[in-house]
Amino acid sequence: MNDLAIGVDVGGTKSLALVLGADGAVLASSRVSSRATSVDALVDSLARQVEDVASRCGADASAAPLGLGLAGMVARNGHFAFSPHLPGASGSDVGASLATALGRGSVVVDNDANLAALAEGHWGAARDETNYVMITLGTGIGGGIVADGRLLRGAAGFAGEIGHMTLVARGEPCPCGGRGCWERYASGTALARLAREAAREGRLDVAKFLADPTGEEVAAAADHGDEGARALLEEMGWWLAAGLANLAAILDTSCFVVGGGLSALSAHLLPSARRHLVELTEGAVARADLRVLEATLGPSASAIGAALAARMET
Amino acid sequence: MNDLAIGVDVGGTKSLALVLGADGAVLASSRVSSRATSVDALVDSLARQVEDVASRCGADASAAPLGLGLAGMVARNGHFAFSPHLPGASGSDVGASLATALGRGSVVVDNDANLAALAEGHWGAARDETNYVMITLGTGIGGGIVADGRLLRGAAGFAGEIGHMTLVARGEPCPCGGRGCWERYASGTALARLAREAAREGRLDVAKFLADPTGEEVAAAADHGDEGARALLEEMGWWLAAGLANLAAILDTSCFVVGGGLSALSAHLLPSARRHLVELTEGAVARADLRVLEATLGPSASAIGAALAARMET
Repeated sequence: MNDLAIGVDVGGTKSLALVLGADGAVLASSRVSSRATSVDALVDSLARQVEDVASRCGADASAAPLGLGLAGMVARNGHFAFSPHLPGASGSDVGASLATALGRGSVVVDNDANLAALAEGHWGAARDETNYVMITLGTGIGGGIVADGRLLRGAAGFAGEIGHMTLVARGEPCPCGGRGCWERYASGTALARLAREAAREGRLDVAKFLADPTGEEVAAAADHGDEGARALLEEMGWWLAAGLANLAAILDTSCFVVGGGLSALSAHLLPSARRHLVELTEGAVARADLRVLEATLGPSASAIGAALAARMET
Repeated sequence: MNDLAIGVDVGGTKSLALVLGADGAVLASSRVSSRATSVDALVDSLARQVEDVASRCGADASAAPLGLGLAGMVARNGHFAFSPHLPGASGSDVGASLATALGRGSVVVDNDANLAALAEGHWGAARDETNYVMITLGTGIGGGIVADGRLLRGAAGFAGEIGHMTLVARGEPCPCGGRGCWERYASGTALARLAREAAREGRLDVAKFLADPTGEEVAAAADHGDEGARALLEEMGWWLAAGLANLAAILDTSCFVVGGGLSALSAHLLPSARRHLVELTEGAVARADLRVLEATLGPSASAIGAALAARMET
């Protein structure tokens, strides 16, 4: 194992790069917008970001283990096959291009939520768990599935695209091309849509003061007695539980770890999700305790997992 | 391996018992109604059925390997934890009771669809496959998941309850206590409901001649030009595909094997399901070919798998 490793997490709206010490401590990090319209622009931006964060703590961007997490379908060989959130980079080999741009050897590439699952199992909420699902709530919903002690890969390596299971047949259109996907109802995007709907119908007090309240502003309003805001977060918790209940039925998972960019709302969403999960899961009474845990590594979990995966392969 | 093994499949409406030869040939079989209202009545009926089928080909019901498949949630230790389809037997140890009734040692017990998956992987449509899902279409929908070469078990052994994933949030009530479960829209029960609705609305010609047409009768009508019957089977194929698309997203399964009591309709349902699966699966264009195969062992797959599992453990 090398001492320092670099991890990058490329999400739908921003990239997080960090340098990880041997003990798992984050020594430096940087966050930049990732609304790149082409793969070349994305790779250029990522290369600069990696060099910047590496230089800040004496790591060598051309030699230190480097892992890359992508919000989308990553094949076992690292090919970035498909992503509704990073359309400009879909179908390309981002990892190979980044390696070239940095004048270095291989870059380890995996799905961002798989990497978050790895990190949370190593240092986070899922230590000692052999059956758990990591759910990353952000712009969309990502997933990493650990079943019977192993990360589930599937036919081509794409397993864990849980945000695109349909919960509402013929429901809300999704950028993936489908309709009624889970992430249309339980994500940052979903919260924004529900808040707009509630505001239009006069059900959201905070919207009288803030034109387009963020998730955090809705949560703060709920804390200050806005019943509409409370109802909205309760509803989102129900939708979160509805997807978890499907995973419990299919995988017999009893441990769910929720992280991602929407983690700031965990205190509002998870109690509702826990309550509804028992009511929505088939045969819940016969199952092990269904647990919905807050991720402990926060929104850096995927980037930490990327650095960890790269270090483990070096 | 013993020469003869006995397998029993207990479904929502009937039990199938059979004796399997060393080469996988079915030497004798019997089918009886399994609408037992109590576990004692069910065990009595099963014991008689096993003794009958065993005696017909010189097998010893008290000594030959005996496997039991149950339509519901079976724990790793064989405990029958929960079943909406066999409510009288839920929460009991059917296998242990059957062993006592037959004056014999252990009975191997597993979920019926897990056993069908095992059988189809051994002798059927899924030979050489390492990532596939067995779907048993009958009264409801059962599932057995093979991921990365191994039967997926989950926390307590309940993995594969795919029929109870929600496809329509807050949809049709299900005997499991949930709502909008997949099997409410794609199963024998669902077909009967859709046929009644279509008949009531005058969309089903065959209903003018038959009061309550069976699935086979709807299929025959479709073959004879009943456009309403065709539309109904097309719709059911769409629902079948909608659930498969969720499994493809979550598990990255590219091979689905469809069997169970509704197999007689495969020629009508599977072409529609195949067509819609490509349209409904996230990133289908980037995935391996999505295949929906007809099970080759027919409605006996679970009972064959039960005998096979028992023989493998002896």
